[in-house]
Amino acid sequence: MGQLKVYNSYFREKQVFESLVPGYVGMYVCGPTVSGESHLGHARPYITFDVVYRYLVHLGYKVRYVRNITDAGHFEEEGREAEDKISKKAFLEKLEPMELVQKYTNLFHWAMEKFNTIPPTIEPTATGHIVEQINMIQDLIKKGYAYEKNGSVYFDVKKYASGHDYGKLSGRIVEDLLENTRELEGQEEKRNPADFALWKAAPPEHIMRWNSPWSEGFPGWHIECSAMATKYLGVQFDIHGGGMDLLFPHHESEIAQSTICNHATPVRYWIHNNMITINGRKMGKSYNNVIRLTELFSGDHPILVKAYSPMTVRFFILQTHYRSTLDFSNEALQAAEKGLILDP
Amino acid sequence: MGQLKVYNSYFREKQVFESLVPGYVGMYVCGPTVSGESHLGHARPYITFDVVYRYLVHLGYKVRYVRNITDAGHFEEEGREAEDKISKKAFLEKLEPMELVQKYTNLFHWAMEKFNTIPPTIEPTATGHIVEQINMIQDLIKKGYAYEKNGSVYFDVKKYASGHDYGKLSGRIVEDLLENTRELEGQEEKRNPADFALWKAAPPEHIMRWNSPWSEGFPGWHIECSAMATKYLGVQFDIHGGGMDLLFPHHESEIAQSTICNHATPVRYWIHNNMITINGRKMGKSYNNVIRLTELFSGDHPILVKAYSPMTVRFFILQTHYRSTLDFSNEALQAAEKGLILDP
Repeated sequence: MGQLKVYNSYFREKQVFESLVPGYVGMYVCGPTVSGESHLGHARPYITFDVVYRYLVHLGYKVRYVRNITDAGHFEEEGREAEDKISKKAFLEKLEPMELVQKYTNLFHWAMEKFNTIPPTIEPTATGHIVEQINMIQDLIKKGYAYEKNGSVYFDVKKYASGHDYGKLSGRIVEDLLENTRELEGQEEKRNPADFALWKAAPPEHIMRWNSPWSEGFPGWHIECSAMATKYLGVQFDIHGGGMDLLFPHHESEIAQSTICNHATPVRYWIHNNMITINGRKMGKSYNNVIRLTELFSGDHPILVKAYSPMTVRFFILQTHYRSTLDFSNEALQAAEKGLILDP
Repeated sequence: MGQLKVYNSYFREKQVFESLVPGYVGMYVCGPTVSGESHLGHARPYITFDVVYRYLVHLGYKVRYVRNITDAGHFEEEGREAEDKISKKAFLEKLEPMELVQKYTNLFHWAMEKFNTIPPTIEPTATGHIVEQINMIQDLIKKGYAYEKNGSVYFDVKKYASGHDYGKLSGRIVEDLLENTRELEGQEEKRNPADFALWKAAPPEHIMRWNSPWSEGFPGWHIECSAMATKYLGVQFDIHGGGMDLLFPHHESEIAQSTICNHATPVRYWIHNNMITINGRKMGKSYNNVIRLTELFSGDHPILVKAYSPMTVRFFILQTHYRSTLDFSNEALQAAEKGLILDP
């Protein structure tokens, strides 16, 4: 089996990859939040880890590749929330968040196929693992690392940090986090501003909700990945991937939760891809420069001078090292288009 | 809005279709069990209800079309069960049922796209609704129509039949069902042989299992559809579809469960498609005549003299009224192939 060296974000160094079980690799990659259409920024991790997956298979490993679908949370269409709240409408006339989930999941799969990515071996959904998340939260409470307040449950970061290196992955200084006093929603329920939600009691207008020992509510974002990674890859697994924007708080929190529940550091190699910028700027709604994948393929966006084929975009993304920032421009895309020799 | 007449299996007559809420239709169709590849028999309901769906949309209705994925249950590959049971293998070496689920779900979606069927607006999974199923079972117990035995929970058919017409949909005589004394697995736990499982305690070798108030186990098949139909379509909805083979016990049991939980007959119009036979015989493993969709499209099956395109199969299925049996033969498929004029 050929050798592979990977840059491990956790240790900040290149390491020779050795799988936990000879011949097998378990890999978890954070998947899309399907409350909207995927954009150019989303293409990078999935194309990057498609190559990682293919290469591991090429080396002879049997790979269990898990990539989740985040489908639990705030899925109300703008403006619809208040309307539903006060309406006496018939059942079928009301917004059903799972219709949006289905629509955007289908669009995501369509785009991933266009990009010629191989589907993951398991694609678990957050809504499909409410039981497992509740079990994990119960375990965290039992072990003294989580507490309930007003039907919501929070992870106790201060307690965790007293015995563990919270911040090691992301390079955050835990003292700064603990002293942070920004006023955000739900902060008054937390023992410490750095604590994060494991379960949120649902306000009346929140449509997505499940029964739990604490309230009708919905799980926090971080617990989702910990529960699904543990279920399908075990208490310790080889590779966890995702974009660098997920280092904190998402991946840092995953480590904390799993370490307490499973008595083991969950991940051996953390791999993170860098971000895509647009003409040198961060992509974001406030910059009006978010290019959705459907717009990219059709050319229908003010920034685009033409349409770009999915394989041109794939080639463009893979031309730059995954740990470097990648700047999108029409010139760069057209250069990639010329560079890519398509088979007839 | 144009008029539609449908044969309602429940009333055994053609009725003028009127939706519960003007302009809206809620339709539930039983989807595939993804423990294996879909075969020719599975193609019929999905192509049939694709036409029903398209026609309702054509008439101007906004349709919420829910078709489930049955992914909870016995998903052990043959021969693997015993092996896993006694093995001390590493986590990644063991069978993970969700890998099979993913594989067969992807294959199913691929075939449905080949058949040019429009995806349902919501495609819920059984594993994604464990909480909702547990809630419904708790409600049935509370209302006195279900009981627990050794960690499993059963629906009390005798009690239900004393006040309701159990057997009306399928035409079964409830007295016959209650006197049936066949010895099947789990029968000794039931108060009456006609009772059906809502929750099954998982034996040690069963891989798929969830925590519940009664045991680590898995839900019964019927409760899945009742829970998901209620969640996404409401306590009463317009159309429930599926193959005639599902009339009993599946749909009969759905009616019983939902009627107790929701104090209402769940479905207004029951629509059932008839079966496909192969050269006049029932399709079945024991007849060696199960033709999987991949085999149908490739021609790679002893019964097939050639490959048939998905659109030929679609045309073949739609040439016969959906309530008549449809006999598969190479001659019939080739006649359909000739009859179908493909656009260039």
